[in-house]
Amino acid sequence: MSAGDDGDAVRAFAGFRERMNARILAEPNQVVRRFFALDTQAYQAGVLDVATKELLGLVASLVLRCDDCISYHVARCREAGVGRDAMFEAFSVGLVVGGSIVIPHLRRAVDFLDQLEAGAPPPPEHAHGCAPGVAPGPGRRRPATVAGAGPGRPGARRWTAASAPGDGSGGAHLA
Amino acid sequence: MSAGDDGDAVRAFAGFRERMNARILAEPNQVVRRFFALDTQAYQAGVLDVATKELLGLVASLVLRCDDCISYHVARCREAGVGRDAMFEAFSVGLVVGGSIVIPHLRRAVDFLDQLEAGAPPPPEHAHGCAPGVAPGPGRRRPATVAGAGPGRPGARRWTAASAPGDGSGGAHLA
Amino acid sequence: MSAGDDGDAVRAFAGFRERMNARILAEPNQVVRRFFALDTQAYQAGVLDVATKELLGLVASLVLRCDDCISYHVARCREAGVGRDAMFEAFSVGLVVGGSIVIPHLRRAVDFLDQLEAGAPPPPEHAHGCAPGVAPGPGRRRPATVAGAGPGRPGARRWTAASAPGDGSGGAHLA
Amino acid sequence: MSAGDDGDAVRAFAGFRERMNARILAEPNQVVRRFFALDTQAYQAGVLDVATKELLGLVASLVLRCDDCISYHVARCREAGVGRDAMFEAFSVGLVVGGSIVIPHLRRAVDFLDQLEAGAPPPPEHAHGCAPGVAPGPGRRRPATVAGAGPGRPGARRWTAASAPGDGSGGAHLA
Amino acid sequence: MSAGDDGDAVRAFAGFRERMNARILAEPNQVVRRFFALDTQAYQAGVLDVATKELLGLVASLVLRCDDCISYHVARCREAGVGRDAMFEAFSVGLVVGGSIVIPHLRRAVDFLDQLEAGAPPPPEHAHGCAPGVAPGPGRRRPATVAGAGPGRPGARRWTAASAPGDGSGGAHLA
Amino acid sequence: MSAGDDGDAVRAFAGFRERMNARILAEPNQVVRRFFALDTQAYQAGVLDVATKELLGLVASLVLRCDDCISYHVARCREAGVGRDAMFEAFSVGLVVGGSIVIPHLRRAVDFLDQLEAGAPPPPEHAHGCAPGVAPGPGRRRPATVAGAGPGRPGARRWTAASAPGDGSGGAHLA
Repeated sequence: MSAGDDGDAVRAFAGFRERMNARILAEPNQVVRRFFALDTQAYQAGVLDVATKELLGLVASLVLRCDDCISYHVARCREAGVGRDAMFEAFSVGLVVGGSIVIPHLRRAVDFLDQLEAGAPPPPEHAHGCAPGVAPGPGRRRPATVAGAGPGRPGARRWTAASAPGDGSGGAHLA
Repeated sequence: MSAGDDGDAVRAFAGFRERMNARILAEPNQVVRRFFALDTQAYQAGVLDVATKELLGLVASLVLRCDDCISYHVARCREAGVGRDAMFEAFSVGLVVGGSIVIPHLRRAVDFLDQLEAGAPPPPEHAHGCAPGVAPGPGRRRPATVAGAGPGRPGARRWTAASAPGDGSGGAHLA
Repeated sequence: MSAGDDGDAVRAFAGFRERMNARILAEPNQVVRRFFALDTQAYQAGVLDVATKELLGLVASLVLRCDDCISYHVARCREAGVGRDAMFEAFSVGLVVGGSIVIPHLRRAVDFLDQLEAGAPPPPEHAHGCAPGVAPGPGRRRPATVAGAGPGRPGARRWTAASAPGDGSGGAHLA
Repeated sequence: MSAGDDGDAVRAFAGFRERMNARILAEPNQVVRRFFALDTQAYQAGVLDVATKELLGLVASLVLRCDDCISYHVARCREAGVGRDAMFEAFSVGLVVGGSIVIPHLRRAVDFLDQLEAGAPPPPEHAHGCAPGVAPGPGRRRPATVAGAGPGRPGARRWTAASAPGDGSGGAHLA
Repeated sequence: MSAGDDGDAVRAFAGFRERMNARILAEPNQVVRRFFALDTQAYQAGVLDVATKELLGLVASLVLRCDDCISYHVARCREAGVGRDAMFEAFSVGLVVGGSIVIPHLRRAVDFLDQLEAGAPPPPEHAHGCAPGVAPGPGRRRPATVAGAGPGRPGARRWTAASAPGDGSGGAHLA
Repeated sequence: MSAGDDGDAVRAFAGFRERMNARILAEPNQVVRRFFALDTQAYQAGVLDVATKELLGLVASLVLRCDDCISYHVARCREAGVGRDAMFEAFSVGLVVGGSIVIPHLRRAVDFLDQLEAGAPPPPEHAHGCAPGVAPGPGRRRPATVAGAGPGRPGARRWTAASAPGDGSGGAHLA
């Protein structure tokens, strides 16, 4: 598979996700719409920053073995500044907790990460549940710090140094 | 249930875990023994610190709905300095990813956390898979920073400030 | 185990659930609180009535194998007028979809149903996530129709005939 | 993806399912054959009508996150007269019970439902486990009532009005 | 916990299982009854002997993390002549496939095995749920062999040597 | 789909698996690498032979519903001499334990088995992920017997007869 094809696959998938989210949110079902809003809210910076929350979402998706969710959180983690070695440490926790049944999903996660690092466009933020026409706040995409980009020593400063308040909020909301 | 009873329950559970781990590791099955060692290794500080890895283990356990694993990681998180509000943010991610089926486990997790905060002894470290007689290294129990103990503002400094190299190793090993 | 003991166990469990829900909802975590409110909202009468929605919750809980959730929905189904034979038909769908791994949970579900039929008090409504002090609306506990209480012929009248508007709303809300 | 392509995909999938079911049932394994027969029997009208049972199967499939099973039950629900808004209420229960990990499957479910409403042929009945050459009984495909097609008031008459005995049996059997 | 208490717990559990199976099978639900019969049939000797099938059931129960099912198959494996080291090899496959989330169940499985080896009575065969009146065919009870009872060398002859007639039959029924 | 296309699909999948395993093992993450090594070790002959262990892996994969893992173990089982009828008996245990949700995976498993029997090349051994440089010990490769290749009578000799030396070793490594 060529890199170009990969990029196409990533784009096709993102397109499908965006189109179906719009379909679902257009439906007059308040429980579904509120759930999507809550899903967005859960990843906004709080006491834990966005990078940590996205890592939590990534490992949860890994042990529950959902490829779409894994890809989504890999992209979000990367935007929040999580480096490749930090990502692999999260993978290793998911692998040990979830067992070898996780391995096929790990393969696809690493393939997706490789594509992102090779320049494929990430899925739009909040593909999980963002309503069409919601405008993200300023600065929302600016990456936080780059975890794992350093020498990788235990105890090294991470995640938070460069995070401005409101940065990486994970956050356009439905309402 | 009185607080005294609760402490007794925590102790009884910790005793069972320790006794059975010893039984299992005494068995001449190398795959099982290596798995237990790997389980310990996965939570040692790397690019990600111990608190973050324990939070990953906590959310993974929550969405997979294993009470024993949840209790274990709640205790480890607390020892690594994760505060109550940070713990609840991790709970909220697990709840949204895993759904209402997680709620009964969340109740028991909060009950266990309440007991720990009321002074019940935590389970011994590495109850997952540590061989009997392994001596933890110096400083292993010293909490890192206290996430969520501060004012809880987004972007506040967290996890890492006080982490000395080797701290929070998660770590006595089998070999 | 005597019937009296069973009733005690049901009451002790209900007490724990209520106490922990109050603990959780007292926590200043908006995502968790909203999730609990959404959980309540999902079972309110809409195009589908309460009995049908509770049966959906019951089968979902059965295949995901959560005893607390199963007990909760068994009690709610019964209050919504679902009869024993209708309950068993729902059990049979859960058993076929979920496999023999469901059987131990089915045993406990039937035991719990037996206790309810013998007069043990059901858990308080909305034990999943209702804030303390919420007053249920009038008529909320009145059973709808009694499904499966008749001769059990296919196509027999069921669920809805006696449902008054607002009946079985499943519904005290958090806000 | 054009509508024509979608129809092709639905047809290709149905063809694969039918072909493999025939392969499996041709095998001299009595347990497997009996399981397939039991799977068919579980959805036949009893105290609960076919529409309700198919909704139970749909929500069970949703929380267990099996796309093929979800598509199958969406088609069966639609044939049993379940309307789009009733389907979304079932989706909302599945989403709340199963969590955000269900969302990617929900997207595909809604896409499949859209295709069916646009005129794509549904999969053959009993694709789960029916042997080829089994003749459905008379009246089996006649839809029951149309849930959710009405004004959507709680307590409105639903599911059962038009169900003749033996209607919606879900039911050709293997033996 | 003393050995006597352990034996009591095993007996209490077996009593509950037997009592509830009888309750469930007394119910006029043909799907449930047939499922229980099929569950019994699946473990009868065929091309694969009973010991192998019980090991399959054991590992399936382990990765799906059902304590009751695990205990049941541990007891059945033991009756079919599976030795402790063979049991641990099966545990190790389940542990690697299913991950560390399996560990708490492994502890309880080993505890249960210890109790059986110390002389606690096993649960009655087919506690899962055999339909009343099913007569096993001739030859079905012929024992396989004793796995892991020999010197434990790789490739050594297995399963069959020490099994007494009637052992590991997979076959006593409830009625 | 033509047989040629099927073979292509099998080859494409095997290629992807091999490529991604190499990517993953090239990463400097010791936990992940050790996990892959342990995954290989778990299926090596011990008290249980390779065929039995691969059947355990197959049923575990079936009830956890991972198509890639199922295909992998189907191929390994076949190489270890497990016949089609023995494979179906394992399928039947997985189906009964795991329920109808397993059926779509069973269809794909049988399709994959059909392709293998029609001459499609199996995936390379240990595609799961063996660490480079691991040398299998002597005697570890000695074949077991051919399950299901005989007349299929209960209690018949099994697993070992037709296996050629080196067959079903559980053992070729990536490097």
